[in-house]
Amino acid sequence: MYAAPSIQVLLDELERLPGIGPKSAQRIAYWILNSDRATVLRLSDAIVEVKNTVHFCSRCFNYAQDDMCQICESPQRDASVICVVSEPRDIPPIERTAVFSGVYHVLGGALSPMEGIGPDDLRIAELMKRLASEEVTEVVIATNPNVEGETTAAYLARLIKPLGITVTRPASGLPVGGDLEFADEVTLGRALEARHPL
Amino acid sequence: MYAAPSIQVLLDELERLPGIGPKSAQRIAYWILNSDRATVLRLSDAIVEVKNTVHFCSRCFNYAQDDMCQICESPQRDASVICVVSEPRDIPPIERTAVFSGVYHVLGGALSPMEGIGPDDLRIAELMKRLASEEVTEVVIATNPNVEGETTAAYLARLIKPLGITVTRPASGLPVGGDLEFADEVTLGRALEARHPL
Repeated sequence: MYAAPSIQVLLDELERLPGIGPKSAQRIAYWILNSDRATVLRLSDAIVEVKNTVHFCSRCFNYAQDDMCQICESPQRDASVICVVSEPRDIPPIERTAVFSGVYHVLGGALSPMEGIGPDDLRIAELMKRLASEEVTEVVIATNPNVEGETTAAYLARLIKPLGITVTRPASGLPVGGDLEFADEVTLGRALEARHPL
Repeated sequence: MYAAPSIQVLLDELERLPGIGPKSAQRIAYWILNSDRATVLRLSDAIVEVKNTVHFCSRCFNYAQDDMCQICESPQRDASVICVVSEPRDIPPIERTAVFSGVYHVLGGALSPMEGIGPDDLRIAELMKRLASEEVTEVVIATNPNVEGETTAAYLARLIKPLGITVTRPASGLPVGGDLEFADEVTLGRALEARHPL
């Protein structure tokens, strides 16, 4: 009753977004109503444009605008080291560390017998094809440190090791700046097992 | 470096939205990338549509899609009681109470000498014109209970009372369900002053 129909439609659509509840949707809707037309059209154009231009990189299945993603196309990246991740969203946090200079391979998920996700549902065949045709010396399996991620990592290691390629996994341990008191027992246990001399 | 250009453009636009930081923008961008095209187009269309169809009600300056807003057009509303608010966003919370059955008048702000907002910057002339031409018995001044809102209320009361129209203001007091212990002293002071017999 109290919102114009097109405002109600906008509120409904905004509330579908992750992390956006009714209050946030209302704040954003009023921002849209109060902003000048050009600003709002820039937003709606950016939304449509991303759907029109972004697809998967033909090599690593990261998001890309051209045939290959910017990382695969960069001559500065070391193509002999492939970091395997579950989703494209896992790449930006790794890039921000500036520690990894290799390339990626996006599986599109993780093995999960519970959810019926098997090896054929992930881009594992595509990974094996890359390992056969590219000169790869190391595969870093950076799937999440949870049940599905660990299962996937173990499965891939069994497949890849016989090829004579080094398979590694990022270390588990205490988060830097974290508090020992608040560490969960599994993490703390792994950190103790992996202790190193100073 | 790690995001396709059109994804970066989308992230920049999303981060302009109120309450949306880099992490939320990223979550929304990935949601857009993972959602099917029709869902995403419904969102972008809703954004454009609201700018194309919503303007101010010619009578009360609430948001409207037709010449007048749904509240002004409703035969169920009592046009003899006008509730004055600062912004259109103040109307939904009042409507949700289901306590007020009159109509509204949106000032478009509040008096603020600090920010150089005087009576001519608000829709006060338009309110006075309504009071002269419509049969109004009461004006409820529901500007915010802060310095600017109180100043605006006092200013309007001085203008309207001489017309023989009752001027009221929502009560200040303790929030229902709130804790006396955590009430600020001004609110608690007003609640005590306005105490009523049981």
